Amino acid sequence: MSPNDEHAKNLPIGIFDSGVGGLTVYRALHDRLPNERFIYLGDTARVPYGTKSLATVERYAIENSQFLASLGIKLLVVACNTASALALPEIRRSVGLDVVGVIGPGARKAVRLTKDRTDPRIGIIATEATVQSKAYSKAIRAASENAEIIESSCPLFVPLAEENWTSEPETYSIAKKYLSEIVDFNVDSLVLGCTHYPILRNVIQQTVGENVNLIDSGEACAEEVDALLKEKDLENSLPSTRGKRQLCDDLDHFYVTDAADRFARVAERFLGTKPAKLEAVEVFGTDELGISKREKTEK
Amino acid sequence: MSPNDEHAKNLPIGIFDSGVGGLTVYRALHDRLPNERFIYLGDTARVPYGTKSLATVERYAIENSQFLASLGIKLLVVACNTASALALPEIRRSVGLDVVGVIGPGARKAVRLTKDRTDPRIGIIATEATVQSKAYSKAIRAASENAEIIESSCPLFVPLAEENWTSEPETYSIAKKYLSEIVDFNVDSLVLGCTHYPILRNVIQQTVGENVNLIDSGEACAEEVDALLKEKDLENSLPSTRGKRQLCDDLDHFYVTDAADRFARVAERFLGTKPAKLEAVEVFGTDELGISKREKTEK
Repeated sequence: MSPNDEHAKNLPIGIFDSGVGGLTVYRALHDRLPNERFIYLGDTARVPYGTKSLATVERYAIENSQFLASLGIKLLVVACNTASALALPEIRRSVGLDVVGVIGPGARKAVRLTKDRTDPRIGIIATEATVQSKAYSKAIRAASENAEIIESSCPLFVPLAEENWTSEPETYSIAKKYLSEIVDFNVDSLVLGCTHYPILRNVIQQTVGENVNLIDSGEACAEEVDALLKEKDLENSLPSTRGKRQLCDDLDHFYVTDAADRFARVAERFLGTKPAKLEAVEVFGTDELGISKREKTEK
Repeated sequence: MSPNDEHAKNLPIGIFDSGVGGLTVYRALHDRLPNERFIYLGDTARVPYGTKSLATVERYAIENSQFLASLGIKLLVVACNTASALALPEIRRSVGLDVVGVIGPGARKAVRLTKDRTDPRIGIIATEATVQSKAYSKAIRAASENAEIIESSCPLFVPLAEENWTSEPETYSIAKKYLSEIVDFNVDSLVLGCTHYPILRNVIQQTVGENVNLIDSGEACAEEVDALLKEKDLENSLPSTRGKRQLCDDLDHFYVTDAADRFARVAERFLGTKPAKLEAVEVFGTDELGISKREKTEK
């Protein structure tokens, strides 16, 4: 193996999200790949993406991806469902790297888990923009001809997760309302198609019933990233990262495009700990020569 | 009166907000000033402001204000509470116009309505950023030495308003939770310090009790704009606008920085009608010569 290959193996994995929600994907990657280092970018200056247009989401996604690529990463994870739904081909074109989104892995896992059924029924819950894009339905249809699919948006789930109302009666009541069609449809598997939803996993599981497989698209993404690193012989070989990693420790770097304080606060709610290394940056993508135009604005 | 004065009188009033919430301020202005024309800018590409930093909110607010100023307006209303709280001095410096925010008017009206009490008690509900800025407390304190003040943030009220859940049991239950300290504090007046909250007015009124004065800061703002136009002799004198105005008719122009479809949909929920004239634009403020760099991206 050449020194170059060795260098590539030991680069961190880049993760970008529109804000804090992707931290659930970071956690899933961290749990699955304890020897890897991560660089996370949350585009908190421009969150949320779920209510923005295709052109705008594509532009932001490319700027974020180029920023992470400029830092030196071996693979890019697009943790944001909206960006995965709308901009994956553009992102792939703009960075010369393997790119893994969350929608394909979530859809494929749903199909895998229902493949023994004669009449597989799959539900998807996601933001308005992701549901409107039909990205999950298309990805499921590509992997299964006979699955029956139902998609619903749950706009209040994101603010409920950010409030950390994970067991309040209001959350149960709202979940019952949002998920009634899913329950009536009698799904076998339900894809949590928004990065915030795993925070409300218990409420959702109790609402749809214990017999329904809940699919965390971040976990499904981590499984595919794991397989890809093995296939391409890109697993980290540095001894320093082995066996002693904690979530948010100083081997992982977090960048936000605004309001680092709030990000740290919500990270603590979601992960139980604040990032050891967190920095606010401006992200302008790269110029024609591939040189990043980013500029650090605060620590 | 010179032709120039006559021209200035008949210019529209500019309104900017971070998104759709400012439509409640537009409605209040429209109701109060039926002879005026309005130009509304919703910065939907960068909404929400309430979770962003001071520097970012200032930059966005100035770009939006300069965009509206470049179209020709006689007065600028900053409908966004966060921008009013954080950026009003910077906005005033950047445009050579009278600028009216929502916080000063809301605070002054609260003081006016409680001035006969020996022990006036005023509550404020707003976004996290507005509450943290203490802008309402400072404005109330400037107008009243003895008022007792309580401030609370109600993060779920914005998504509940956008879902149009104006009478759902979950909304009542959440309101009861958020407003319990306000109720215990026994306020005389309660300022609705976020543009979305008037949509939930009935729920809020029932939760705090019928004897509490609810102050819509958009209505308070419209009253001060009315007084200012009279004082400066800037009331519209065109016969064409008199007595036949409808909300969102074709004398008012609406601009958004992204996702015009979603804006129209929420406008219909909030106002019962869609804007006749709605355009998506990019807002880059003006260059050193005062020339707007805006660029139209879609119709």
